[in-house]
Amino acid sequence: MKDKKILLSEKEIPEKWYNIMADMPNKPLPPLNPATREPIGPDALAPIFPMGLIAQEVSTEKWIEIPDEIRDIYKLWRPSPMYRAYNLEKALDTPAKIYYKYEGVSPAGSHKPNTAIAQAYYNKQEGVKRITTETGAGQWGSALALACNFFGIECEVYMVRISYDHKPYRKVMMNTWGAQVFPSPSDRTEAGRKILAMDPNSPGSLGIAISEAIERAVMDENTKYSLGSVLNHVLLHQTVIGQEAVKQMEMAGDLPDIIVAPFGGGSNFAGLSFPFLRLNFEEGKKIRAIASEPASCPKLTRGQFRYDFGDTIGMTPLLPMYTLGHNFVPAPIHAGGLRYHGAGILVSQLLKDKLIEARAHNQIECFEAGILFAKTEAIIPAPEANHGIATAIQEARKCKEEGVSRTILIHLCGHGNFDMGAYEAYFSGKLTEHELTEKEIANSLAELDTPMIG
Amino acid sequence: MKDKKILLSEKEIPEKWYNIMADMPNKPLPPLNPATREPIGPDALAPIFPMGLIAQEVSTEKWIEIPDEIRDIYKLWRPSPMYRAYNLEKALDTPAKIYYKYEGVSPAGSHKPNTAIAQAYYNKQEGVKRITTETGAGQWGSALALACNFFGIECEVYMVRISYDHKPYRKVMMNTWGAQVFPSPSDRTEAGRKILAMDPNSPGSLGIAISEAIERAVMDENTKYSLGSVLNHVLLHQTVIGQEAVKQMEMAGDLPDIIVAPFGGGSNFAGLSFPFLRLNFEEGKKIRAIASEPASCPKLTRGQFRYDFGDTIGMTPLLPMYTLGHNFVPAPIHAGGLRYHGAGILVSQLLKDKLIEARAHNQIECFEAGILFAKTEAIIPAPEANHGIATAIQEARKCKEEGVSRTILIHLCGHGNFDMGAYEAYFSGKLTEHELTEKEIANSLAELDTPMIG
Repeated sequence: MKDKKILLSEKEIPEKWYNIMADMPNKPLPPLNPATREPIGPDALAPIFPMGLIAQEVSTEKWIEIPDEIRDIYKLWRPSPMYRAYNLEKALDTPAKIYYKYEGVSPAGSHKPNTAIAQAYYNKQEGVKRITTETGAGQWGSALALACNFFGIECEVYMVRISYDHKPYRKVMMNTWGAQVFPSPSDRTEAGRKILAMDPNSPGSLGIAISEAIERAVMDENTKYSLGSVLNHVLLHQTVIGQEAVKQMEMAGDLPDIIVAPFGGGSNFAGLSFPFLRLNFEEGKKIRAIASEPASCPKLTRGQFRYDFGDTIGMTPLLPMYTLGHNFVPAPIHAGGLRYHGAGILVSQLLKDKLIEARAHNQIECFEAGILFAKTEAIIPAPEANHGIATAIQEARKCKEEGVSRTILIHLCGHGNFDMGAYEAYFSGKLTEHELTEKEIANSLAELDTPMIG
Repeated sequence: MKDKKILLSEKEIPEKWYNIMADMPNKPLPPLNPATREPIGPDALAPIFPMGLIAQEVSTEKWIEIPDEIRDIYKLWRPSPMYRAYNLEKALDTPAKIYYKYEGVSPAGSHKPNTAIAQAYYNKQEGVKRITTETGAGQWGSALALACNFFGIECEVYMVRISYDHKPYRKVMMNTWGAQVFPSPSDRTEAGRKILAMDPNSPGSLGIAISEAIERAVMDENTKYSLGSVLNHVLLHQTVIGQEAVKQMEMAGDLPDIIVAPFGGGSNFAGLSFPFLRLNFEEGKKIRAIASEPASCPKLTRGQFRYDFGDTIGMTPLLPMYTLGHNFVPAPIHAGGLRYHGAGILVSQLLKDKLIEARAHNQIECFEAGILFAKTEAIIPAPEANHGIATAIQEARKCKEEGVSRTILIHLCGHGNFDMGAYEAYFSGKLTEHELTEKEIANSLAELDTPMIG
């Protein structure tokens, strides 16, 4: 009998985070001040982030040490397991070898606590009393609630209204770890009230929720803001996943030809892929990394590479990224964590330089992929995770057609235990597609007056 | 930094199940034919169970080999981790050392797949096409749905109405793995129709759902029935948990003084404790095993030791067990998996012989214990699991009062991801207690005319 799991011991939890900035041939352009259009310095971020995280945001050091206190909390679920998906391979009758790295073992059920714990730690170091944040599907909010609980910091979560309504149990989970949760848009902020005035039934979006959380942080000097994806320091923290995976693939005597990961803002994708891209940079490997995004929110495959705001209201600096426009409100698909208009600047630059790839999938295709996964590998994936699985299945089928064996590594970033309503919608035939017309995308982008890049 | 987890490799998944029957000083009395009151032979069970499982039910062999096909599926989540609960110890400021064995890593989220996989395997061996079962909280139904999926067997689940209403996502989970789910009492069976005629709003009970599932199995020769607890072969299969835990405690250089586990029908409790009781039998160790039951369904602490039916309608043989009477309908507490009137015959005999202990807890005490656990150890436990945690906390506090260090091992049998509605009820102050008066218990037992024991 062959082993299904490749496990590491707690001693093998990475001791450093990997900063891909150091290895990128073209560094990302600097963020701009929206008013002056001049590059901003780190100080501009000080009202919303602690200096420890700002230093990481702009660092070009290749390796950044992980404090012991953080690694000690990581031990509650890390290292996470890697599996060989023998049953899925068999069901697809493919010569491909499929592996998955499973982050659903974290108490919050996804990869998000890897950065939440780190962010809470650096906030605590600087005496921060309260952290605000946004959450889409609830995975990020749960992770930050958990992290703040460990460091005795208050946690205030703005949850995108449609997810708040679809997934009430995520709220209870956050409450259990001591966080307060508000549906966004809310009447607690100027930003929220402005949106509600235009549309009292707004389903919300990550962009709106970010505006609300930032506004709350700026109002109070003891309050900071925390983001669950997009930013460089967030992607940095997630590289523990890929570093473990590199070791685990070595233990399996294998190396991925293709890595697939869902794409929302970039932290999920970066977490697994960056440490493998390091092998491309350092050792000339040719590992393909594919970011899987929803067809209803296709910033990587159909967006523009230009400066845009990270939030809807325009409170952030202008960031150089692939974007659908900061006013874009994605259709209410069930993969709430992928409903974001832009892409992190590191990932955007890598895509621009053709060092990574992107692919869009329809919602129903993703649920079909997830259900096949559940029936073969037993774990029911989060709707976000289904996007990566959909890409992997396409690639495995291509291997079969071509009669070629390739090694595919999937980022199974979370379980679907809180997403059964989405599966129910699938089973009852209530899922619809939300493919965007060229005109819709053009209209959303036409509202921007920010600089194009490249 | 100290390790939190004690992990085993897949090679260390037990190769045999441990049958405590071989070591018990007093063997359980035989099941009786309800009509003749004569002992029944194994053949009487043939209409509802495959012979492979019946053989295990009556076996007195100490060790029973686990087929490779079963161990291969176990590898999807086994061996399960053991944790040292450093954070909980610190919060309780106790000299006690607390460990927990975590079965929530299974794809169904509890220990139940350990026996579900085995049962589906033996049914498949004998050409069974469909398996029926009951489920309370949904954990057992999910586990059997998963298991039947792997063996290509149809799965039909009767889910206790109150849980069906409280936990709709458990149903979707079962559907995802291909099972059909019906609320019980249903109009699909005589048993269900009879109950509905008396009370159209019956919240249901495990006893009623068992009657329905058995009736469906008896009707069709290609259909068998499967039970998730109580019976000897079910307890047998769960001993993989305790066998792993014995190894893990050895690796930790420790031995539990006290083992605590929630008690519904016995499989959870037996799974962890029997392999440790073996050490008591063989090596004269004095490990205390405490079964933690709800105060609203206290068969071990306030029931009678006598013959009774395993189901409500009276379709099973008469079993020698601690019982509150087979017509007892427990209050609608949130630990649905513990709402069962009786106790398995192995555990009943062990309790009668004072080789194990039992303790009852109120519902609110259990949720408080679970929330403290979540805030320290990060995992949000299932409401059933909270009962074992409540006992462990009592014992840890006793250690503090007495200034004595003891080693306590908790069976954390599942996560609470599907039980957030229960936690919400706690937070919103809607939980009530359901302590039974002496008269209520006496009335329920007065309906029995079956033999008392001992």
